[in-house]
Amino acid sequence: MGAPGFTTVKELDLRNFVTEVFLAKGFSVENAATASDVLLLADLRGIDSHGVARLSGYLRLIDAGRINPNPNFQLTHRKKTIAALDADGSIGLISAPFAMKAAIEMGSEYGSGWVGISNSNHFGIAAYHAMMALENKMIGFSMTNASPLVTPARGSERMLGTNPICVAVPAGKKPAFVLDMATSAAANGKLEIAERLGKELPEGWVMDKNGQSDRNPSGLKNGGMLLPLGSDAEHGAHKGYGLGSWVDIFSGVLTGANFGPWVPPFVSFLQPLPNLPGKGLGHFVGCWEVDGFRDYNDFTANMDLWIDRFENTKTPDGSSLPVIIPGTPERLAHEERKTAGIPLVEAVYQDLHQIRTQLQLSQNFE
Amino acid sequence: MGAPGFTTVKELDLRNFVTEVFLAKGFSVENAATASDVLLLADLRGIDSHGVARLSGYLRLIDAGRINPNPNFQLTHRKKTIAALDADGSIGLISAPFAMKAAIEMGSEYGSGWVGISNSNHFGIAAYHAMMALENKMIGFSMTNASPLVTPARGSERMLGTNPICVAVPAGKKPAFVLDMATSAAANGKLEIAERLGKELPEGWVMDKNGQSDRNPSGLKNGGMLLPLGSDAEHGAHKGYGLGSWVDIFSGVLTGANFGPWVPPFVSFLQPLPNLPGKGLGHFVGCWEVDGFRDYNDFTANMDLWIDRFENTKTPDGSSLPVIIPGTPERLAHEERKTAGIPLVEAVYQDLHQIRTQLQLSQNFE
Repeated sequence: MGAPGFTTVKELDLRNFVTEVFLAKGFSVENAATASDVLLLADLRGIDSHGVARLSGYLRLIDAGRINPNPNFQLTHRKKTIAALDADGSIGLISAPFAMKAAIEMGSEYGSGWVGISNSNHFGIAAYHAMMALENKMIGFSMTNASPLVTPARGSERMLGTNPICVAVPAGKKPAFVLDMATSAAANGKLEIAERLGKELPEGWVMDKNGQSDRNPSGLKNGGMLLPLGSDAEHGAHKGYGLGSWVDIFSGVLTGANFGPWVPPFVSFLQPLPNLPGKGLGHFVGCWEVDGFRDYNDFTANMDLWIDRFENTKTPDGSSLPVIIPGTPERLAHEERKTAGIPLVEAVYQDLHQIRTQLQLSQNFE
Repeated sequence: MGAPGFTTVKELDLRNFVTEVFLAKGFSVENAATASDVLLLADLRGIDSHGVARLSGYLRLIDAGRINPNPNFQLTHRKKTIAALDADGSIGLISAPFAMKAAIEMGSEYGSGWVGISNSNHFGIAAYHAMMALENKMIGFSMTNASPLVTPARGSERMLGTNPICVAVPAGKKPAFVLDMATSAAANGKLEIAERLGKELPEGWVMDKNGQSDRNPSGLKNGGMLLPLGSDAEHGAHKGYGLGSWVDIFSGVLTGANFGPWVPPFVSFLQPLPNLPGKGLGHFVGCWEVDGFRDYNDFTANMDLWIDRFENTKTPDGSSLPVIIPGTPERLAHEERKTAGIPLVEAVYQDLHQIRTQLQLSQNFE
């Protein structure tokens, strides 16, 4: 059902299936529910690259002993508003929500709270973690480093992940402002779409391994690298590189995780480098209590005004495309998919079927 | 002396002169010294657009009653780690260092500290404020909104300032990592240089008032607008717009200052809009204590490793340009100008002379 090449499944069925998969792999009931919730939110919000499409990759890393399905989290409160979490080889899908809860507790008492996470694996969508702050009348913040794919400005070597930054800000009658952006010019998901369609890439997304521009949609797979936001020297590639570096330093260096080229790969067929400087990969999460700065209701009234004014930005002559508030396309996808179901591309659909067969699960997802 | 069209002056002479100018305008001794220190650091670091080149503009705003030279700062501690500063119509050159000191005090006790500043004016270089954290073994953070010049992605209206983000991170034997970046594709200073040289702009910097690409170096002055980092839809302009929006929300909405198109202009010949939603313009500053996350010396040792590894990133075949750590060009300029002096472009040099004559100052700067 749905668009050609896609099968649409119901949220609840998919959620129950994914939960059962994690349970079968040894996750606790609570952790399986959380991990499933993070993946489902990605699929609901239309971030298909970070949803159940990742599931088979996670399972291979669990089977290879590179993701610990049953971790013993060690949270160390080193300051009143800062803690360090050793995620015990677990995965960001569960370590980051755990850390974010601790950050929100500190924030409730002191106005802000921060947790650096080491010894972790893939984060899931950054927005899940930051958005946990919203219901607490807080601004949420999250970032993670990731397998190296992006070159620094002026370089030609994979040194940084697509290292996202997420900031989630509550509003009043309007929906929240949710900025969740990779610090590369183009995210991996866009390359996958171009490759599937056999379409040439725009200049400024990918560089080949010799440092030359590459418009082949398979250029990254052929040993090339992604370019930082800004793409080239004239358009501010040093800024995208600077942002990605900031994320790497906060997620890796500050937490005691790995950083730069040492961040472990997400795929089981690539091994981590020898002599790693840290443990696993790292994340950084935290929150600010809005009422620390000004009255919450005054703030949200002005956020509504901000959103309304920006939605009504003048657009170029002849354009019918309005200015978009960060987080809006994802929220609209969520509203639609919540009722209409989640469209799974054929390869992912088959992947899930295979998982179901291999694990001999009773739960179906269609 | 120096390059043609430039006169080189000694740091100390210029510093004393600028201090005397602020004193003559009614600044307290302490505030005059701080404001002068912020401007001089910009000139020393080679950020000429944010140094003494701004002085005559500040004086016009003081004369027009739009900068209060003798403010009564109101700092309200609303949470243990968050305070709100009403800068009483003053200027960021002094309100932001004042706020940063308060943030560092909170950080020393609780691990982090944050101050939202409203009712302020021009920030100076963001790096000055964030770098105050470094000597306290903290990571510094600063942002500010600014007069609207940048259009949101898909829009064609000046809605955001060049809204910089600064993060300053201490290292060990290596110099600190200092990211200080505008969230537009190109900063105003680059346009001024192109205009001075009569050079066409690259695509992706400026759009004219009808929403068409504009390569005229005077395009911004002719009613056009700057484009966000990313420049166009294919290269992530929504990300630069998202970052600039984040800065605007934190600096304006969260603090009770103005935001978006309502941020007051920096020039005395343009009036603020009527029915402003907030007070003046706003800034956001704060800090994290490194030791809250992990042992400080372990952290700085890994920062040194991070910096060393990134400095040694592979570069494209045939390139002799190494990868640069954020903050390095500014630090090298500082080292050079500290001894060789500060080169002032002719227009600025004449400007300062005129100020000296008008204010009948005894202090000279050459």
